[in-house]
Amino acid sequence: MMFTGRSAFPLTPIKDDAVDETAFARLVERLAAENVDSVTALGSTGSYAYLSTRERARVTELAVEHAQHVPVLVGVGALRTSDVMTHVENAQRAGASGLLLAPMSYQPLTEDEVYSLFRTVTQNASAPVVVYDNPGTTRFTFSTELYGRIAALPGIASIKIPAVSGELHQARTRIDEIRAVIPEHVTIGVSGDPTAVTGMLAGCDAWYSVLAGTLPRAAKRIIGPALAGHAAEAVAESQRLAPLWGLFTDHGSLRVVAAIAEHLRLTDHPNLPAPLRGLPPTARHHLREAIEKLALLP
Amino acid sequence: MMFTGRSAFPLTPIKDDAVDETAFARLVERLAAENVDSVTALGSTGSYAYLSTRERARVTELAVEHAQHVPVLVGVGALRTSDVMTHVENAQRAGASGLLLAPMSYQPLTEDEVYSLFRTVTQNASAPVVVYDNPGTTRFTFSTELYGRIAALPGIASIKIPAVSGELHQARTRIDEIRAVIPEHVTIGVSGDPTAVTGMLAGCDAWYSVLAGTLPRAAKRIIGPALAGHAAEAVAESQRLAPLWGLFTDHGSLRVVAAIAEHLRLTDHPNLPAPLRGLPPTARHHLREAIEKLALLP
Repeated sequence: MMFTGRSAFPLTPIKDDAVDETAFARLVERLAAENVDSVTALGSTGSYAYLSTRERARVTELAVEHAQHVPVLVGVGALRTSDVMTHVENAQRAGASGLLLAPMSYQPLTEDEVYSLFRTVTQNASAPVVVYDNPGTTRFTFSTELYGRIAALPGIASIKIPAVSGELHQARTRIDEIRAVIPEHVTIGVSGDPTAVTGMLAGCDAWYSVLAGTLPRAAKRIIGPALAGHAAEAVAESQRLAPLWGLFTDHGSLRVVAAIAEHLRLTDHPNLPAPLRGLPPTARHHLREAIEKLALLP
Repeated sequence: MMFTGRSAFPLTPIKDDAVDETAFARLVERLAAENVDSVTALGSTGSYAYLSTRERARVTELAVEHAQHVPVLVGVGALRTSDVMTHVENAQRAGASGLLLAPMSYQPLTEDEVYSLFRTVTQNASAPVVVYDNPGTTRFTFSTELYGRIAALPGIASIKIPAVSGELHQARTRIDEIRAVIPEHVTIGVSGDPTAVTGMLAGCDAWYSVLAGTLPRAAKRIIGPALAGHAAEAVAESQRLAPLWGLFTDHGSLRVVAAIAEHLRLTDHPNLPAPLRGLPPTARHHLREAIEKLALLP
């Protein structure tokens, strides 16, 4: 089931202002070896917004090649619709199993503009599309009604929703509200790792996970029990990672997993595209302590 | 005085998903004929964020060619620092007199990241740089202290600040606050056309103007009296345009001037890059009424 379970978002490591292809391939191979349910290349964690069309096409090819049996979803978002379509074509040619589409914005977008973007893409793409709702980066906020309009388009397979409340009842209310306006075949995947366990317990089908892209086992120790109905165990495991979630909240999950990947020597240092910089020194110190205390191994 | 007075931000009209070079050249020629103090090509109103490197280089060449005696500033912002540097080099090669740099973001940026971007650019550029603070599109908010740090970099010529309060005393307090932390040679230019008159009366040196890019005379009827010390006349003229400012606030200034340019047959229809769409029909109707009532001629 491609749009359910643990979808792992790997970094696209950048070295000397170019994609570190060796490190990226290794990251994807690790995820495949851990049997994640899908790999989502070129998500926000994969820095898609910072890469050229050529770099994105190459990263897509590498992801499909190295993920082997694991389906690969690919981020195709861009500010201009015609660029989105170029990324769609390149992703499909490379063998992507699905497309992740965020309504990137510079000028704030209207609901009609976002709807027309998804309509254009679904009308022209053959691969299924995941609606990528990530207001922290796109600065577009979907209304529940817009979820419904877009999810009704043929070709929409899943919605990646932003962080849910950490309070189970509230999260369940929100998921039920979304479920009521979308077709049954469209899955709901939660993001926002710090409260993802609540999202899964509240009935989400998938976890679109930053953590799983770099530490797939740590993510499995949360989602495994959650899916098996062992709520207390899942919650306890997520709570154990509180020091990590605090850093996610304070510095953005991307900077934190980038630093984890460096610390575990999965990539060189630095690995983010400028002007993005890694964690500041104090946070890096806290992270090292957390990695040791929580026994977070690669 | 290149970084003072009326800087006009022309549209970059898009036709069939390509730059309408003829229409763009005509827009810039009109601005030069009106003796604006500078033309800023590829500002937010010039849709720089949506264009390819090649398109941006071509638009820059056309702007410099058709602006004749009027200095041309060029927007060089991009999400990735190395792309910014490519735009800087192309702008300088084409003969741009200044560079407008907004800290575009996808991942929210830290102050240190933005500072390092401006440091990298000013260290490597020969043309003077305008700090482009436009939180509505970049989603980065400068602190006053960061203005000070960046304005101290050699090569910074001006700061384009967001809309000021429409209340003169408050606007003056804000301008004084900024003035206190930046070197004397760095000018302050106001944006946010609906309250720009207040900004000018509060002591700004320049008006970085969306309106002036399409209706340079209408802008002159505000900034002319403001700079000559005829405050009441300037305010009255700005208040006369209230119906226009209302549409700017409700739909974004870009969509409004794009529709004005269409209505006045300065460009074809539509002229924005997808997924951006023009004004919805009702707003377009209000705009047509306003254009006639206010006698806004091309």
